[in-house]
Amino acid sequence: MKVTVWNENRHEKKNPIVSEIYPKGIHGQIAYFLEEAGLDTKTATLDEPEHGLTDEVLNETEVLIWWGHLAHDEVTEEVAEKVKQRVLDGMGLIVLHSGHFSKVFKKLMGTGCDLKWREADDKERIWVADPTHPITEGIGEYIDLEKEEMYGEHFDIPAPDELIFISWFEGGEVFRSGATFKRGRGKIFYFRPGHETYPTYHNKEIQKVITNGVKWAANTNTPNPVRGNHQPLEKITEK
Amino acid sequence: MKVTVWNENRHEKKNPIVSEIYPKGIHGQIAYFLEEAGLDTKTATLDEPEHGLTDEVLNETEVLIWWGHLAHDEVTEEVAEKVKQRVLDGMGLIVLHSGHFSKVFKKLMGTGCDLKWREADDKERIWVADPTHPITEGIGEYIDLEKEEMYGEHFDIPAPDELIFISWFEGGEVFRSGATFKRGRGKIFYFRPGHETYPTYHNKEIQKVITNGVKWAANTNTPNPVRGNHQPLEKITEK
Amino acid sequence: MKVTVWNENRHEKKNPIVSEIYPKGIHGQIAYFLEEAGLDTKTATLDEPEHGLTDEVLNETEVLIWWGHLAHDEVTEEVAEKVKQRVLDGMGLIVLHSGHFSKVFKKLMGTGCDLKWREADDKERIWVADPTHPITEGIGEYIDLEKEEMYGEHFDIPAPDELIFISWFEGGEVFRSGATFKRGRGKIFYFRPGHETYPTYHNKEIQKVITNGVKWAANTNTPNPVRGNHQPLEKITEK
Amino acid sequence: MKVTVWNENRHEKKNPIVSEIYPKGIHGQIAYFLEEAGLDTKTATLDEPEHGLTDEVLNETEVLIWWGHLAHDEVTEEVAEKVKQRVLDGMGLIVLHSGHFSKVFKKLMGTGCDLKWREADDKERIWVADPTHPITEGIGEYIDLEKEEMYGEHFDIPAPDELIFISWFEGGEVFRSGATFKRGRGKIFYFRPGHETYPTYHNKEIQKVITNGVKWAANTNTPNPVRGNHQPLEKITEK
Repeated sequence: MKVTVWNENRHEKKNPIVSEIYPKGIHGQIAYFLEEAGLDTKTATLDEPEHGLTDEVLNETEVLIWWGHLAHDEVTEEVAEKVKQRVLDGMGLIVLHSGHFSKVFKKLMGTGCDLKWREADDKERIWVADPTHPITEGIGEYIDLEKEEMYGEHFDIPAPDELIFISWFEGGEVFRSGATFKRGRGKIFYFRPGHETYPTYHNKEIQKVITNGVKWAANTNTPNPVRGNHQPLEKITEK
Repeated sequence: MKVTVWNENRHEKKNPIVSEIYPKGIHGQIAYFLEEAGLDTKTATLDEPEHGLTDEVLNETEVLIWWGHLAHDEVTEEVAEKVKQRVLDGMGLIVLHSGHFSKVFKKLMGTGCDLKWREADDKERIWVADPTHPITEGIGEYIDLEKEEMYGEHFDIPAPDELIFISWFEGGEVFRSGATFKRGRGKIFYFRPGHETYPTYHNKEIQKVITNGVKWAANTNTPNPVRGNHQPLEKITEK
Repeated sequence: MKVTVWNENRHEKKNPIVSEIYPKGIHGQIAYFLEEAGLDTKTATLDEPEHGLTDEVLNETEVLIWWGHLAHDEVTEEVAEKVKQRVLDGMGLIVLHSGHFSKVFKKLMGTGCDLKWREADDKERIWVADPTHPITEGIGEYIDLEKEEMYGEHFDIPAPDELIFISWFEGGEVFRSGATFKRGRGKIFYFRPGHETYPTYHNKEIQKVITNGVKWAANTNTPNPVRGNHQPLEKITEK
Repeated sequence: MKVTVWNENRHEKKNPIVSEIYPKGIHGQIAYFLEEAGLDTKTATLDEPEHGLTDEVLNETEVLIWWGHLAHDEVTEEVAEKVKQRVLDGMGLIVLHSGHFSKVFKKLMGTGCDLKWREADDKERIWVADPTHPITEGIGEYIDLEKEEMYGEHFDIPAPDELIFISWFEGGEVFRSGATFKRGRGKIFYFRPGHETYPTYHNKEIQKVITNGVKWAANTNTPNPVRGNHQPLEKITEK
């Protein structure tokens, strides 16, 4: 399975705390553990030509992971539309953390995708809400993160097709932190954790969830419907 | 309750078959039966300034009905965005028939919204799939339409929050012809029937469904969430 | 609208703390605020003949509220089946708090309906997860309860048709505390709060949610499908 | 993966048309194509001791397939309850055709599960409604069955978690003929086709869907939640 990890890669250049946690960038760290799990993984970043998401890259990508925050507006309309279209055509998409506000996610959701947030070292506890889902394979009843950014309800998304995780935050909020959506022929998994100043993507359970998400999101040769003018399959009586 | 019926009003000007069926326009006919049902109804059309959807009109509209077909591209991006935003802010939206391909619906769905179609005088039978829903109030088990345009699956929409009607077509297709979606603080009802060359909006049962849909879609003083930076409601321990 | 509030009414007889908070019983208090809201309300309790739920009572009840805890097993199989059948036939049902383990709710859900719990004076904060829903009318973004019994995930229910509220608990858990389900022709609202030793049903916001729930759950003359052997509506070709 | 195909195996003994189509029984035919697809498959039938579903068999079964019709009432309450419990504990379940009225399915759904039906050689066309789902892998846009029993709406089930197929019938009806449900830790797939007097389970596409369904329904080491009295994970303040 071919995976592309996209990252805006800006915090890493500006903030030494981030580059210390992620010396190869957030994308490098995610690619690292996906490779370890046996997935064929490449990376792409904002400042590459076409943000690293050329037609060639997109066409061979089976699942795309998206991390962005500071520079959502710098992603060109053209690339955002192309990524959206590839999802509708069957590419899986994993949107992480602040990617909730990316052009791609907002276009696919149709809503504002806003939420409450706070950077205050909240403890986060991510509870499993759907113990049948392959995304929860190998996970316990919850995942504890000692410090994370808080995201709180109301999260302005459509009701998810499946609600996988609900987060508890020390400061008193809750959040639907793992949710799946189907759009067109593509599958989308939003997963909340991963603020840049915490070592969240070094956490083995978080890695397991993302790896499970990639496997779940890949398309498996499902039908590709034809649309438009359609000849009748049965005789239509004259009226 | 204040309702605005929007119609592109072009078929009525070009095609005498349509203007004979709907001498006051499709919008005029829909407004007529909604008024009969006791709803405070206005109309707006594409060729009016701002397509008749000024800020003032949109702000006082509780439920908007949308019929468009030939001229989706002539709806300005600005008006389409404003209507979308008003839905997210709580205005109800009823999208009829070929409105599936309107800018407003596509923006709110995030998908292509395409489908199979055929103009061949198919008989359509609209079956109730959810006999708990207020949109089906006063309706029987199905509604028969002697002649209609066919719309067939796969309809490229997100899985609806509620599937209300499924259509059977004489030529061999099926269609999810009544579906609800919640987006932001707004409620959306897509209802399939209403090709311009058939007298569908003169049908009493179709009128009843649309009237029910308007009543269901109106917002009832539900919470208006605040988003953004959020102070903790509980003490956060130092770490 | 005719409402019946059912309560097992045992804690009130055994525990002076409960009878002090609810001198007319939990059922009496719920009936009181529903009457204040203009609803025609009666009560029924476990120790009455047929648990107060005779055919006559059930047939004229449009929405039934259920509170039980200690004596789920004393509800006869016959009455539980009759209540279930009435829900499938169109009666609305509001299941409160420990009613999650009632025979009626378990039969309608098809799952174990178990959960985590703790009686330790947790603070509960009930967040609105669906700001479009009429059940949230007139409520703010959350409801705070200073002390309540904790219920925690995983709550063993089917994925709700609509997730209305998510609770945060001081001790570190979350819970899907407001959820709707449609079964047959009936609508069901499960609402978590209401441990007997706390004055939860004196809280005005909790009262508002329950009142909203009753109004939402009432059937509105929707279709009553016929099932069984069915004559063809179209000609079937010989093969 | 270990699969058990359960069949009441009565039509095969009574009706030479059926035994000619399925000389090894419906169970034998289903087991045959699952074995061909590489799945480790056994069979069990009504007239075996404990209906062939001993604790040993159930405990090692990862996915159970259910076909029954004439003799739903002869399935003991004890076995039906055990099968239900195994599903809640994580065993996958595929319910075929007239299995909609089995004790096991009705217990898991909580509804009446009734529908319209007709034995009149209707043509059936099964349309794909969810082209993202692994159950549709390798299938086209629809499956045609020249002759089948008709099942029509309203099908009295809870709204499915996922609607995979919708059937068109020549006599004028539609049916939600492929639907998934999650209950407890188990996954359920209902698939409509398979009347005993037609060679439906010899159809390669039908075989493919059932095989896909078995693979989808198997549990993949997801969490097994603990419920009951729960110690706080965070300090609760005294009040």
